[in-house]
Amino acid sequence: MEQHSNILKYKHLGIYTQNENVVYMREDCHVCISEGFEALTRIRISNKNTSIVASLNVLNSDMLLPNEIGLSDAAAKKLNASQNDTLYVSHLEPIESLSHLRAKIYNQKLDYSAFNEIITDIVEGDYSNIHLSAFITACAGDRLDIDEISDLTKAMITSGKQLDWNKEIVVDKHCIGGLPGNRTTPLVVAIVAAYGLTMPKTSSRAITSPAGTADTMEVMTNVTLSLEEIKTVVEKEGGCIVWGGTAQLSPADDILIKIEKALDIDSEGQLIASVLSKKAAAGSTHVIIDIPVGETAKVRSSEMAQKLKNHIETVGTAVGLNVKVIITDGSQPVGRGIGPALEAIDILKVLKNEADAPKDLTERALLLAAELIELSGKVEKGKGLETAHQILTSGQAHKKFLAICNAQGRFSKPVLAPYKIEIRAETSGNLKRIDNRKIAKLAKLSGAPQSKSAGILLNVHLGEQIEENQLLYAIYAESKGELNYALEYKNNHNDIITII
Amino acid sequence: MEQHSNILKYKHLGIYTQNENVVYMREDCHVCISEGFEALTRIRISNKNTSIVASLNVLNSDMLLPNEIGLSDAAAKKLNASQNDTLYVSHLEPIESLSHLRAKIYNQKLDYSAFNEIITDIVEGDYSNIHLSAFITACAGDRLDIDEISDLTKAMITSGKQLDWNKEIVVDKHCIGGLPGNRTTPLVVAIVAAYGLTMPKTSSRAITSPAGTADTMEVMTNVTLSLEEIKTVVEKEGGCIVWGGTAQLSPADDILIKIEKALDIDSEGQLIASVLSKKAAAGSTHVIIDIPVGETAKVRSSEMAQKLKNHIETVGTAVGLNVKVIITDGSQPVGRGIGPALEAIDILKVLKNEADAPKDLTERALLLAAELIELSGKVEKGKGLETAHQILTSGQAHKKFLAICNAQGRFSKPVLAPYKIEIRAETSGNLKRIDNRKIAKLAKLSGAPQSKSAGILLNVHLGEQIEENQLLYAIYAESKGELNYALEYKNNHNDIITII
Repeated sequence: MEQHSNILKYKHLGIYTQNENVVYMREDCHVCISEGFEALTRIRISNKNTSIVASLNVLNSDMLLPNEIGLSDAAAKKLNASQNDTLYVSHLEPIESLSHLRAKIYNQKLDYSAFNEIITDIVEGDYSNIHLSAFITACAGDRLDIDEISDLTKAMITSGKQLDWNKEIVVDKHCIGGLPGNRTTPLVVAIVAAYGLTMPKTSSRAITSPAGTADTMEVMTNVTLSLEEIKTVVEKEGGCIVWGGTAQLSPADDILIKIEKALDIDSEGQLIASVLSKKAAAGSTHVIIDIPVGETAKVRSSEMAQKLKNHIETVGTAVGLNVKVIITDGSQPVGRGIGPALEAIDILKVLKNEADAPKDLTERALLLAAELIELSGKVEKGKGLETAHQILTSGQAHKKFLAICNAQGRFSKPVLAPYKIEIRAETSGNLKRIDNRKIAKLAKLSGAPQSKSAGILLNVHLGEQIEENQLLYAIYAESKGELNYALEYKNNHNDIITII
Repeated sequence: MEQHSNILKYKHLGIYTQNENVVYMREDCHVCISEGFEALTRIRISNKNTSIVASLNVLNSDMLLPNEIGLSDAAAKKLNASQNDTLYVSHLEPIESLSHLRAKIYNQKLDYSAFNEIITDIVEGDYSNIHLSAFITACAGDRLDIDEISDLTKAMITSGKQLDWNKEIVVDKHCIGGLPGNRTTPLVVAIVAAYGLTMPKTSSRAITSPAGTADTMEVMTNVTLSLEEIKTVVEKEGGCIVWGGTAQLSPADDILIKIEKALDIDSEGQLIASVLSKKAAAGSTHVIIDIPVGETAKVRSSEMAQKLKNHIETVGTAVGLNVKVIITDGSQPVGRGIGPALEAIDILKVLKNEADAPKDLTERALLLAAELIELSGKVEKGKGLETAHQILTSGQAHKKFLAICNAQGRFSKPVLAPYKIEIRAETSGNLKRIDNRKIAKLAKLSGAPQSKSAGILLNVHLGEQIEENQLLYAIYAESKGELNYALEYKNNHNDIITII
């Protein structure tokens, strides 16, 4: 399709559309006229090395000459386009896997090969946001059976790179979200790596929460490492805590997560496929999955947790992983900080065994580390906790954490945001309820996770006796606008914290 | 939220994004910095009169000054923005109806009030393409029960204007698509209006087909009329054939249809809500729905057709319409032309009773007109066909059609596209099968319906004895690129027409 008439000259426009590929062409350009394109047609743009699919926006102003073509920053980066480069434009060949997408929309069961075609096209960038949203929705709400979840997981594993550590045992852990502040991962990596296990941890950024492990770690160290860099860190320190995106492990997952975020959903099938595909692609062999259960956690009942546990273990076996699922208390946030920097502060307090370190966070991290140590078969059943505890209190875990951060490129201390407002109790009484979702939303409105130092610093726990005017929590923000926006939400919702 | 600090000056950029509201701001503009916006955040833009929601694209070039703001053409039009106008920018308040959308994604049943909130927000433009696609998908594939379809239909009826013709009987018809070339509507309107019934027909453009009635009529007359203009036409001629979009009848439907088109689906619930909401909002009282059934039609089996018929009649009753559903043969295209201008040529031949007028199209139009005449109760059961036939052969229908076109602003003769290629039989034998979907796709690839004169001119029917080298059909296109693209598809698919 690289005919002479479809050649245009690239001009930099500097339009940032996040991840979306957009191409800009003049309505009177010869390619638009001869090919019959119209706005929002999806078309293929190529240079001599590679090609992308982009949505067309048609210009009727002189930002471009008729023989010029513009690209959104995301598209320009993927094509590695420089000013005045020659680009070729062609119709998009039909996307065959859309027939499988339509079959799924109509409730038909898909097999591995169908999922594989869909995931391959998604990774190629051939699906628009409309297609991606339909795929997410068609797979949500119990619409995937257990075979389909296994097949989707397998397709996602093979869609990107797969690591091999040449070790018999490679451990990992994952928490099925929903609990603000519950940032155990960095602690668990530090403890089990100090113990001598291999734990190459790749984490995602926040999906619908105010912080993901990658967001929190980025406050203290580099998390965007190449695969080579990750290998070097893990060989040296036995563990790492990096963002999974650049490692190109299960790259479809990163694309789908953005859409789930826009919809503010996280469905069971996608959740299992997302978690287990990342683990398998990262070369893990033994994995602990933590499901916190609570009225306002992601998983709201023991029954749902039990079902999810069974599904995860079944899919885990199907894709060759040794998975153990534990169900924990999800009735309130864990730790004090909610938001990247505030959670980082909690983590450092725990590692340094400081007097005001949040006890609940410490206990959870020890529990998970203990489970991994036992799952690896290196200590007797029941002895894991003692081992983990000793590693933490001796300072070995802290030392290991700093070593991992330095191996990843730097260690920086977290700082607090410049704007702050304290929220105090309007009445005295017993603290009956903390709404995990609403407190998470408050942290998001304050700017987290984009604003790293924004979020909530929680001062109270369930069951405590509260005095009138006692400090409940503080909201931190990096801009006045965000602080006011969070405050407005707080003023409109009097059930974030319930005191009776 | 109209604080001084959130004021920016509008600059025209001339970026056409089809229907999508996009706002462009400099990354170093004071609003971005103080409010903490990032790319693809959805934000509210207001002037003194109105406001819209738009997706933010961040600029890092000098297309704008830091105190300027740009809008996509669609957004500028909705705000009626002129150069240097003052615009106010604010965070988007939470879209409350998204909780209903998420409930539907998770398979929960929605009631009228939930659908009403969703449809209201959709009409307001608050839903992004990602939200719209999720709504379409969550409602597809039998995921709406009959109560939900009725409630969705009611919500769509009240989402826009509702016409009242001050007549006891107002008739309408609709064909559940899937049959290329089956353009009976203009013929039926001409016949029943000539008979004396009131038939104010509003039609949609193509969803996934190579032409909708509005696309075809636009070749011959204006179809974009204001409500006042429609009323004038109907009062004068008893009927009209216009595009339903500008009439603001069930405006949510027009927005949802664009997403269904991008997904290439048309699900039962949306289909019923779409059709019946348009009819009810247009003030119809008596409606005939035609369901063609065939292996490659939209409805593939009598069983599916019967189920759809029952659902349509139930929902029709629930929203106060007198609906009769008829099931017809959908095994092959109807008429010779497939594509706006080619279908218009067929219609004129039928109206003029020309010797080479397509018989199948004539018969279907007469059948539907007869059903409407009988449904209105103005003739005895069984006498409708005779009446319709007399009106057509006498030339009354042709006269009425031209009068309606002229009342709508013009009558223009259809013309054929400049590029053409004839496809001939490679073998002799009996014509066993015409794939409706593939021949429709071929017409779409040739440029229809955007290119009005593009499409397919079919020369053969099922059951005919075909000689080698006999002309099967011709492909028409307005550009060489489109002709080649259609030809490539034809060459890759040898089962468009099957001769054995």
